[in-house]
Parts: sequence; C-alpha cells; structure tokens
Amino acid sequence: MPIPIRVTVWNEYRHEQRDEEIGKIYPQGIHGAIAEGLNAQEGITARTATLDEPEHGLTEAVLAETDVLTWWGHMAHREVDDAIVERVHERVLEGMGLIALHSAHYSKIFRKVTGTSCSLKWREADEKERLWVVSPGHPIAEGIGEYIELEAEEMYGEHFDIPAPETLVFVSWFQGGEVFRSGCCYQRGEGKIFYFRPGHETYATYYNEEIRRVLTNAVRWAVPVARPAPRVFGNYDPIEDLSWYDKRNKPTEGFGTR
Amino acid sequence: MPIPIRVTVWNEYRHEQRDEEIGKIYPQGIHGAIAEGLNAQEGITARTATLDEPEHGLTEAVLAETDVLTWWGHMAHREVDDAIVERVHERVLEGMGLIALHSAHYSKIFRKVTGTSCSLKWREADEKERLWVVSPGHPIAEGIGEYIELEAEEMYGEHFDIPAPETLVFVSWFQGGEVFRSGCCYQRGEGKIFYFRPGHETYATYYNEEIRRVLTNAVRWAVPVARPAPRVFGNYDPIEDLSWYDKRNKPTEGFGTR
Amino acid sequence: MPIPIRVTVWNEYRHEQRDEEIGKIYPQGIHGAIAEGLNAQEGITARTATLDEPEHGLTEAVLAETDVLTWWGHMAHREVDDAIVERVHERVLEGMGLIALHSAHYSKIFRKVTGTSCSLKWREADEKERLWVVSPGHPIAEGIGEYIELEAEEMYGEHFDIPAPETLVFVSWFQGGEVFRSGCCYQRGEGKIFYFRPGHETYATYYNEEIRRVLTNAVRWAVPVARPAPRVFGNYDPIEDLSWYDKRNKPTEGFGTR
Amino acid sequence: MPIPIRVTVWNEYRHEQRDEEIGKIYPQGIHGAIAEGLNAQEGITARTATLDEPEHGLTEAVLAETDVLTWWGHMAHREVDDAIVERVHERVLEGMGLIALHSAHYSKIFRKVTGTSCSLKWREADEKERLWVVSPGHPIAEGIGEYIELEAEEMYGEHFDIPAPETLVFVSWFQGGEVFRSGCCYQRGEGKIFYFRPGHETYATYYNEEIRRVLTNAVRWAVPVARPAPRVFGNYDPIEDLSWYDKRNKPTEGFGTR
Repeated sequence: MPIPIRVTVWNEYRHEQRDEEIGKIYPQGIHGAIAEGLNAQEGITARTATLDEPEHGLTEAVLAETDVLTWWGHMAHREVDDAIVERVHERVLEGMGLIALHSAHYSKIFRKVTGTSCSLKWREADEKERLWVVSPGHPIAEGIGEYIELEAEEMYGEHFDIPAPETLVFVSWFQGGEVFRSGCCYQRGEGKIFYFRPGHETYATYYNEEIRRVLTNAVRWAVPVARPAPRVFGNYDPIEDLSWYDKRNKPTEGFGTR
Repeated sequence: MPIPIRVTVWNEYRHEQRDEEIGKIYPQGIHGAIAEGLNAQEGITARTATLDEPEHGLTEAVLAETDVLTWWGHMAHREVDDAIVERVHERVLEGMGLIALHSAHYSKIFRKVTGTSCSLKWREADEKERLWVVSPGHPIAEGIGEYIELEAEEMYGEHFDIPAPETLVFVSWFQGGEVFRSGCCYQRGEGKIFYFRPGHETYATYYNEEIRRVLTNAVRWAVPVARPAPRVFGNYDPIEDLSWYDKRNKPTEGFGTR
Repeated sequence: MPIPIRVTVWNEYRHEQRDEEIGKIYPQGIHGAIAEGLNAQEGITARTATLDEPEHGLTEAVLAETDVLTWWGHMAHREVDDAIVERVHERVLEGMGLIALHSAHYSKIFRKVTGTSCSLKWREADEKERLWVVSPGHPIAEGIGEYIELEAEEMYGEHFDIPAPETLVFVSWFQGGEVFRSGCCYQRGEGKIFYFRPGHETYATYYNEEIRRVLTNAVRWAVPVARPAPRVFGNYDPIEDLSWYDKRNKPTEGFGTR
Repeated sequence: MPIPIRVTVWNEYRHEQRDEEIGKIYPQGIHGAIAEGLNAQEGITARTATLDEPEHGLTEAVLAETDVLTWWGHMAHREVDDAIVERVHERVLEGMGLIALHSAHYSKIFRKVTGTSCSLKWREADEKERLWVVSPGHPIAEGIGEYIELEAEEMYGEHFDIPAPETLVFVSWFQGGEVFRSGCCYQRGEGKIFYFRPGHETYATYYNEEIRRVLTNAVRWAVPVARPAPRVFGNYDPIEDLSWYDKRNKPTEGFGTR
C-alpha cells in the first residue's frame, strides 16, 4: 500500500462561485471541504484540482502522482474535455482508485466505466436520507453504525441505471418513498471504483463526520495494488511445449496490437 | 417472452471475402453460418446485417425489430460508425440482448458496455480448447456436458481486461498453458449481454453443434423483459406526503434532463 | 425446460388453523392461495405439501417429481425434520428450484443454503411497503412496473444477514424508516434459489396480482436445466496425455469419495 | 485494522505424523510451515491449533483472540466436533476471517458457509499447476505476477460445487486438461472468507514464497472491520413517526427472537 496515499480531490467548482448561499456553505469549495477531511487523516495527503484549471488540473504529471481520485461534478459535465476523460480512464485501468461523488453519477468518467446511462430519479425537497449498511464486513463500512442519517439531502431514487455493483455497501431510504443503492463498488482493469451518493451542493454534507469517515475508508480501500508485470496483453508465446504447432499457420494480418 | 425471438446476426464480413481459405470455410459468411444455426431452432427467426451495408445494416427500423443482436467483428472494428454504436448501445439499455462473439471482445460496442480495454493475450497455433462449465444451473449451459472440446482454435488468455462477469458460465483451458473466462454474462440497463469466446475465422467453429447450442441458449436467455413504465428517470414527485416541504426550495438550474 | 413445470407449494400451515383471523384470510391455507395463483398460469402445475403430513409431504417420490419447491414457514421451523432438510438440500444441488417466502428466511433449508444466520429486524405495524425494481432486465421483474406497493405488511429491515445476492431484484422501502433486500437470487449446485420478502400471515398478500406475478416469474426462472453427465465429481483420469505420470504415485487413503 | 493481526493456524496434523515422507516435508507440521511464513511478516502474529488438542485447540478464549483463522484438513474432516464447527461459524459471522486451504474445501466449516457439497474432481499425478490472476486489482493478488506456477501439485478440477465466488482472484490451469477456480472470496455475516486451492500434503507448497505472499495478503484482507452496534437484529421500533400505528396490532406469538 502506498504511504502516504496521494489523493487528488477534483471539483467542478461552479455552484460555490455562482450561488452565494452555496458559497457560504463551502467557502473553500466542495473540494476544499473534502480535502480538509482527508488531510486530517493519518497516512493520507490530498491536493485539489478543478475544472477551470489548465487541463482541468489533471495533467499527466498530476495523475501519475495520484493514487486515488475523487470526483464531484454537476452542472458542467459536458465541459469536461474528452481527452482528459480518456486520460483518467487509462489511469483507472492502470490501478488508480476513483471515487465518484453524488451528481458525479452523471459525469463522463463514471458513465464511461459503467457503460450505462447512469440516469436516476431526483428531487430537491430537504428530505431525510438514511443510508443503511448492507455489507457490514466491508472496509468502507468501518466505524459506521447501523446507518448514517442525514437530516436533509437531495433525493436520488431507483431505478439507478448502473451495472449491478460488485459489492453494494449502502442502501438509502428517503422520506418521500424511494430507495437508492448509494454505496457501490466496482473494479475496472486494475482500478477500484466507489460511487457514494450523498453530497448535494446546498447541504453541508462534506463536513459530516460519518460522511468523512466513509470517504476516508473508501480512499484506503481504493489504493492501487502493486504487481510485477501488470497489463501484459497481445500476442503471447505458449508457455507449454507446442512442438506439434505447424509453423505454416501464420497469424492473419490486419487487426494490429490488442 | 417474444415469440418468435427476432435475432439480427451482425458480421463484419471481411475475412471471408478477402481470404480464399476462410471463404471456403464460410461460403455464406460467418453470419450465414450463425443465422442458419439459429433459424433451425423453434421459436427463433434470424436475419443478418453486415458492415458494408448502409448504416451497417443496423437502421433504426432493424434495431426496433431486433430482440437479440449477435456481433462478430475483428479487423475492421474502427470502421464501425460511432453513431451506430450509440444507437446499438441505446437499444441495449432499452432491453435488446447483445451477444458478443470471439474477437468482438474488442469491438466498440463491447468496450462501451464494459468500460474496460477488453485486452487479452492471443496466439494462433491450432491449439485445443476445452470450455469447462462452471455455472451448471445456468440456462446457457443447458444441454452441454462437463465441457466442450474444440480440436483447434485461436488461444485467448488471461488476464482478460473485463469487469468481473455477473455470471461466469465457461472457463477455457488451452494446450499452451493458459486459461480464459470464455462465457460471461452482464446486464446493462434493461439489456442482457453474453460474451462467448470461440469462433476464430479460420475454423469451422460456428458449425459445431455444441457451439450452436450455446448460441441458441444465449439468445433465449438474452430476450428482453417486458415491463410497464420502463426507464422512468428525472425529476420525480414524492410518493409519500412531504407537506413539510418548503416550496421556496427550487431545483438548481443548469444540468438539464437526466 | 420442463413442461408443465411441476411445483410443490410447501406450507407450515399452523397459523391458519390456530388463529381465527388468519384462517379467514387463508381458508385454504397460505399454500392453497399460492397454489391457486400458480395453477392459473399456463404451463405450471402446482400441488401442495404441509408440515403435519408424513415426511412433511416431501417424500423422495414427491421431490423427484418437483421442479420447483416454494417454502413458507414461521413458528415451527424447529419442527422440520433435519433428514427432510437434507433431502431437500440434496435435490436443490441436483437442480430443483427453491423459492423461500417471507419468514422462510429463517427456515432450516434457507439457512443451510446461505450459510448465514439470516437474522433481520422486524416489526408488525401495518406499515406500507414499496418494493422497488433494481434489476429491470431480470425475468423475475417481467410485467412489474417501477415498484410494487403493499398497503400493509410486516416490516423486515436491514441488516439482513445473508450472503450478497448474486442478483438483487427488489429493494423494499418501509414507512418506519427501513430498507430491505427483498428479492434475492442465488445458485447452489445446479439449483436456483429466490428469496421473496412479502407474505406475512395476517395480510392477504398472496392474493395480490403483482405478488402472484412475481411468484410465477420466479417459478419459471428457477426451473432446472437439463445437462448430460451432471455432477461428475471425485477421482478423475487426465484428459490430456500424462505419460510422464509416475504410476507409483498412488492416491493417499483415508478421505473417501468426494 | 487490528495491529498486530492475530492469526490462528489450524491443522488436522495427521498426514505428517502417519506418513514418513510427508513428515519429512513438514517436520513442524503444515501448520508450522504456514505459521512460520506468517510470523515473518510485519504486523502479523500467528499461533497454531490442531485437531487432537482439547476442543481441537479452538476454545472460546482462543477464538475470541483470533482475527483470522486458517484451516487445513483432509482425512479427518468427520472427526471435527460439530459444536466446534458451530463455534467457529458464529465467530465468522461476528467478523473473524476464515481462510480455507486446499482440501479444506471439504471441511465441515467450509461446507457450512457455502451451503453446497463443495465436491470437485481430483487426481494425484505430480502435475504442473498454473494459477492465473483474473482480478488484478484485488489486494490478495498484490505482489503476484501474471501467474503462479507450481511444478507439481494435486489436480483439482471443475465443476467445483461452490457458490459463485463474490470475487474470483485466481483460476488454475492443469497439465491434464482441467481448470479450477482456485482463489475465491466470500463474505458471510461480518466475516470474510478466502478459499485457496494449492497445498497438498505431499508437496512443499507452503514454503513457496508466492504462496506465502498470497496467504499473507489474504490474512490482511480478511481482518475484521470494527463497527459500533454490529449485529442488531430482532423486534425493532420504528425510526420514523408511525403514530397511525394501531396499538391493537400485537406481534403474533410463537417464533421467539430472531
């Protein structure tokens, strides 16, 4: 495990600057609040990056030094450069952890790794949300009781158009009558991915101690795994003796390296 | 279940026309051999479509009448129009089954639904492949014994860079020393997806009775499920009474329909 | 697929006989109501069996003619003979479908196939339950809308101590603030298993058309798959030439047939 | 995470004492070799327990101080006391990790947590085994290359009658033509379980550095997760206001505490 774990906290950072009320909740931006929570943890060091920085703050150099990337976006998903999305995707396949937060369900990168529309139902009604732990032995649930209760949050409801999570850690209850798979683990390539639902910009959710605990746990869970000779693909010599192999059989041409 | 099940058998159809040896194996094309096998089954009617037809033969009208789409491609993945890939993807999310065959592991549509590189190891050495059933109660394994043995096939080896299959039905053994997850089930949106490994163009694999049985089973498994009011997403009124809801809270603008 | 599908509807059949109110809801017993619903479906024939019959109505002969077994039990789980549980378990591994209903979460057979305590939270408060579809392409959800609403049911809440379902089809919302994984698919041996939550004895749940639709779908999904040479285990000759094999190596004695 | 991780290495310890050749390979017993490997790791402290000790060495006190239990058994599965199996099972549900090794596939405890027969094919022919990594981002694969090669091992072949692993980490290739799911992760209750195939008593497998690395990784992965208020089950008061609740509705009697 890398020590310290190097986290890059990415944020769209638009709501906080455009909406005075939201700016009061997150004076350092949502990224600032998340990074603050992570930097308070032993063995984690978090920096931030935002949409309006050059290359969205996600240069090759930054990603090369990132073990886990957290992502918050909402109103400007379309402004994220496809080339940067490709770059992040490549790094996830190589092992970088990815934590998609709240409305990042609809980000280009999350839709790319899921292969689905990631659509859902939503409602802004200051509703109570209760996140029940359904995978109690999972490290992301460490330190969390039977459930996390949030007095007011945006509602997200099923059907949430995602692949079935490889591990489902939380299921949310909402006051208006809906449920939601709100803590979802995936693996893509060598990278681990966690989607975590709460965190609408109009609430102080990212200061909540239990939410911060989940984010810390998720970062630790998502660290890359070091292995010799990872990602060996393409034409491959037999390991066993294939002396019976007729050398006249030649690979067909035309499809290049995989 | 739709009766009959309407299958569209898609094929790149290049190798058969360019390489005389391959053309002899599949005089009606790989698509012809697959469609022939499916049309011999009760309750299934298969038509074909190929890359060089207008819109690759996959017009809106054709897809609207397709319950299950099978896909074979290899040397010309890049020539498949992105707009057609989007169209197929949309239909999968709406419920159309998708069966990705052999080198279609590297097709645009399969990479889109998996979210991974779908890279693998490969070798053309006339090797023996043995596909072991590891999910014996799964309908795709119906009628299949302990394993399917193919005297000569291309080798595909792990690591196969896919998401962990939701159900793994077959694991292949290869003479040269490799293994491969060769029968993989996924669900994306309302659509069911099956990847099936065998079927290199230089072998008569698609005439093999056991391979045909698997394809038939997969088609039956992948049929869409009819439901009232599918794919309801977006802003959603509360089902329960939320009279405490402060009407002053308005949805934030700027992120469009989900 | 067996036609017709032969279902045995098993019921403890105690509450209906002991409690006048419950007897009025289910004058033919819960088993009678379930069997009636199934027998109204094309291609399904259901019979019943109850706890107080000899061998609980589950003789070798009955099980041999059963494709899918549904199980309802509650107050008398402990009275179910361990030998009969073993017999049912053996048949599940051989391919018989098993549908565990409501309080059968705590039956010997369900705990045996899950390997967990199957404990949960519960409350009898005439609460509203809403079962949301979270796996919309699954055949068990066919014909079901966004959710099933039951005006009054017993509450079951998380954490439900089961293995993570191989497919999670429904998640329930309860008025009192809880959620529950209420439609859960498993495979054990060649057999398919579905747990379905609703059906407390004090409610007329098994007359509900949507609940009946789910049970019908589940029966069709759970039918055994016919395969040549199933369940081949034990000492096994090599398929490939192992002429290098030193015949002096003999299996160690002492551990019998696996 | 507990520091140090307290491991109890359990061994049947019969082959080593009865068979001179095996005794030479493992003069301290298989448990001795495994414990030696674990004790060489930072942050892990391993002790041993064997079948012929009182209570098989698995007293309440020992289990209470065990974070992860490894299990090796073969010829004497039936001699393991059912009461001890229950005790171990209870501890797994409470969070203790369990690592089932090689022929422990057929142990009472592994069959209890899987709910299946755990039968398989086997052959003792000094065959080559190659364990391919199929889940490259999983912590149990850390430090392991494309595959682990063992020059000679017992063959285990599919179909292996287990539930589909929640995560499949390794798939084995055998010289005689078989494959095997040889590294399988499960969760039961709060406990994490790993099955790892290699380790026949006639081979020095537990001295192999790569095998030791996998065992170390598995121990670290399987540590219990600490949570406030774990395992809350049974009758549960509503969290939300259910003032509409008619107090005349009383729980039905007769089924005790869940």
